[in-house]
Amino acid sequence: MSQPVCAIVGAGDGLGRALAAKFASQGFDIALISRSEANCVAAIKDATAAAARTNVQFFSADATQPETIEEALACIAEDMSEIDILIYNVRGEFTACEPLEMSYTALEDIFRVEVIGAFAAAKSVLPAMIRRSRGSLFVSSATAAFRGSRTHPLYAIGKFGLRALSQSLAKAYAKDGVHIVHMRLDCDLDVPLMRDAYGDSYDPEKLANPADVAEAYWLTHLQPKSAWSNEVELRPYTELWTY
Amino acid sequence: MSQPVCAIVGAGDGLGRALAAKFASQGFDIALISRSEANCVAAIKDATAAAARTNVQFFSADATQPETIEEALACIAEDMSEIDILIYNVRGEFTACEPLEMSYTALEDIFRVEVIGAFAAAKSVLPAMIRRSRGSLFVSSATAAFRGSRTHPLYAIGKFGLRALSQSLAKAYAKDGVHIVHMRLDCDLDVPLMRDAYGDSYDPEKLANPADVAEAYWLTHLQPKSAWSNEVELRPYTELWTY
Amino acid sequence: MSQPVCAIVGAGDGLGRALAAKFASQGFDIALISRSEANCVAAIKDATAAAARTNVQFFSADATQPETIEEALACIAEDMSEIDILIYNVRGEFTACEPLEMSYTALEDIFRVEVIGAFAAAKSVLPAMIRRSRGSLFVSSATAAFRGSRTHPLYAIGKFGLRALSQSLAKAYAKDGVHIVHMRLDCDLDVPLMRDAYGDSYDPEKLANPADVAEAYWLTHLQPKSAWSNEVELRPYTELWTY
Amino acid sequence: MSQPVCAIVGAGDGLGRALAAKFASQGFDIALISRSEANCVAAIKDATAAAARTNVQFFSADATQPETIEEALACIAEDMSEIDILIYNVRGEFTACEPLEMSYTALEDIFRVEVIGAFAAAKSVLPAMIRRSRGSLFVSSATAAFRGSRTHPLYAIGKFGLRALSQSLAKAYAKDGVHIVHMRLDCDLDVPLMRDAYGDSYDPEKLANPADVAEAYWLTHLQPKSAWSNEVELRPYTELWTY
Repeated sequence: MSQPVCAIVGAGDGLGRALAAKFASQGFDIALISRSEANCVAAIKDATAAAARTNVQFFSADATQPETIEEALACIAEDMSEIDILIYNVRGEFTACEPLEMSYTALEDIFRVEVIGAFAAAKSVLPAMIRRSRGSLFVSSATAAFRGSRTHPLYAIGKFGLRALSQSLAKAYAKDGVHIVHMRLDCDLDVPLMRDAYGDSYDPEKLANPADVAEAYWLTHLQPKSAWSNEVELRPYTELWTY
Repeated sequence: MSQPVCAIVGAGDGLGRALAAKFASQGFDIALISRSEANCVAAIKDATAAAARTNVQFFSADATQPETIEEALACIAEDMSEIDILIYNVRGEFTACEPLEMSYTALEDIFRVEVIGAFAAAKSVLPAMIRRSRGSLFVSSATAAFRGSRTHPLYAIGKFGLRALSQSLAKAYAKDGVHIVHMRLDCDLDVPLMRDAYGDSYDPEKLANPADVAEAYWLTHLQPKSAWSNEVELRPYTELWTY
Repeated sequence: MSQPVCAIVGAGDGLGRALAAKFASQGFDIALISRSEANCVAAIKDATAAAARTNVQFFSADATQPETIEEALACIAEDMSEIDILIYNVRGEFTACEPLEMSYTALEDIFRVEVIGAFAAAKSVLPAMIRRSRGSLFVSSATAAFRGSRTHPLYAIGKFGLRALSQSLAKAYAKDGVHIVHMRLDCDLDVPLMRDAYGDSYDPEKLANPADVAEAYWLTHLQPKSAWSNEVELRPYTELWTY
Repeated sequence: MSQPVCAIVGAGDGLGRALAAKFASQGFDIALISRSEANCVAAIKDATAAAARTNVQFFSADATQPETIEEALACIAEDMSEIDILIYNVRGEFTACEPLEMSYTALEDIFRVEVIGAFAAAKSVLPAMIRRSRGSLFVSSATAAFRGSRTHPLYAIGKFGLRALSQSLAKAYAKDGVHIVHMRLDCDLDVPLMRDAYGDSYDPEKLANPADVAEAYWLTHLQPKSAWSNEVELRPYTELWTY
């Protein structure tokens, strides 16, 4: 017998994996969308382990090709069940460059991944959610959505756009009972990539634990609709934050 | 046998009452601080009804007299148990006036209620929380903390100050394991006062339900410490928000 | 004998025309970049009338084709003189639609006009400005850069991106003596289009006068480099603003 | 023959002195308000030197005693001429302490200096400005008005309050033709105090030059009323800014 579906676009071995496990443990079937199933091995394993009855399925799509996202989400609705929550957890490459070194192509690519891909996902699931007057759309974002950057301008430009999209969707469709949230991670995540990047200065207390972040997503999903957040900030207790 | 204590400064028949009931239902003893026990009758009743084993006690203090807050909180720690969460839920009178009509006394009063009172509460509970590396301090605030107002300047000036205090405390003591949160209500609450104010245009769907807001406070309290929010926004799904 | 050049990308009969006249009156030669010279007739006329010695020239480019912007700006530097200030004053169509009605193409178009076009302009003029340790790049933007919209999501998404670009450039190149500014108009402009849109409720006191806005751009250009603004807000004295 | 008056509350040997000289050079008589004339010696000297015809006068007041500000400003209006621009340039001591070390008295003091003092000044000059439909009220503030601080919480609490006041006044009285501006210095100033504080790492290029900041105030004062800024940020071109 089917459970409500949590669909995660972008489910690698960082936050996506933790989200898959968390929502599986809470009674959701899990649909993982990524370019290749190889990316999702850890997420599939953890989600499957989290709850015996969980149905975990992989669907292929490329975030830079919005039609493939539409197709994958249509398949999920058909093959599995109604999508109760969709988490857009994709991010473009976190490329360092100074602003004048950006190429037009890199700008277009980041916009496709961060904004058009997220919109394709929204377009695919919101109409049914609006009809049912329930459902959630969460987008994984960062403090980069609030501040330009002299070292990572592409990331900032993408996340600003994602935030504009998220706010616009929330303002338009909250009244229809759909909970749309911009999840701002104001920190680095304790994932393999970061462990390598930090090297000797790696300190897990300074980073957000993916399972804890997934827990915070879950708690946000539990908010009753007369007391919703549409923008959530998350940071570890050790973070020296500015805003 | 004692349970951890949730202390609520400012527990009238609006949000305070709902917070008392919520935390009582989750295994907390409840300490209510207000000028007179009469203000807390509804909160006492609801908290008592929420869970059979809950110990609910009233303590007298005047938010404009910081020493009385210190005394009340010292009594609680002694008479009941350690305070695990303190919610500063006081607000000054929501007086409408144009800015030039403010008096110096009114400015001082709002600052005493919103900032000095909150600081007195923080000062009374944080050292023990820091020692134990656990505990929460939530302040009830509003969108007025983000925007000056031509019609309610006193409220804005008070809430700006409360937000500055809350951010400063969070930035200083999060590292010690204390969760300090500025709860921004971006809406009106469905409380008797507002029902009267709205009159014929009263529509509960347009207002935040106090029980739902209390639920959102509770969910925030559950955040794990590597994924904390320090500023939370809450609004009903019907709200036409700007920021 | 040539004067320093003020290049304006997007010089129609609204703000662009007023900017051309203002900078002409202050001793600049004026380069107008637009898709067709017909768009610039008013700007050419006013800039020419503003000062006898002003050299006003038109250059053709399409903001959605970044290479054409590069070419036009290269021609200006060659045919006229060094560009001392470039004003990116283009905006996409101010299309009303609800978010779910946006097309992928419309999203790409707005991003091209607002972000890629502005970046093409920046890329064309900043290296020379950095070499000379002087020059200004101003982008015309709006409060839409700060807030998603349920009625004009495309405009918001474009302006968010433009602001991210502007901040990133400013953070990277201010140290090289280049003044990069995001000009936020928090109002409607008193231009023919708006007069028609307002109809009977048209009231010039409620709108920003283009000549006054151009004056405010000029005053920003005069800021000394140890006291620069990188984000400027402008609104008429009658505006009921929120942020 | 009298010129319009620029009144400066808090005119020491930093920014106040530069403001006095700037406005004197632009055809204003200068009224300096401070606790003692000794504080204003440099400002008096520079304002006098800036323009032969300038009338420079000192008036005694204590920013923590709002009535003394009212009295000083009443004297100015009587002894000199109408006040065309008032600059509230006072700041409380920039005391470093951790939040829990603040005293109630220190909180009250900072609120008196930053908010009540500024309000006393506003109350003293705005009614006449509203009657004449012209005039400016600028308050000198800082990025501390936007962010709590774990090291300088008093300063943040004061500046948040000042910003709330400034916004409230602007929203209420701009329509009456009065230009009210929160001047945010996002930097340290190149003043004797800072030179000492920086010691060997003192580098004038990293600091805002007071004369340049005064110039930026002046340029803001020149904005036409259909294109006003109500919040202005200022920083040196070398500043690594976040927001």
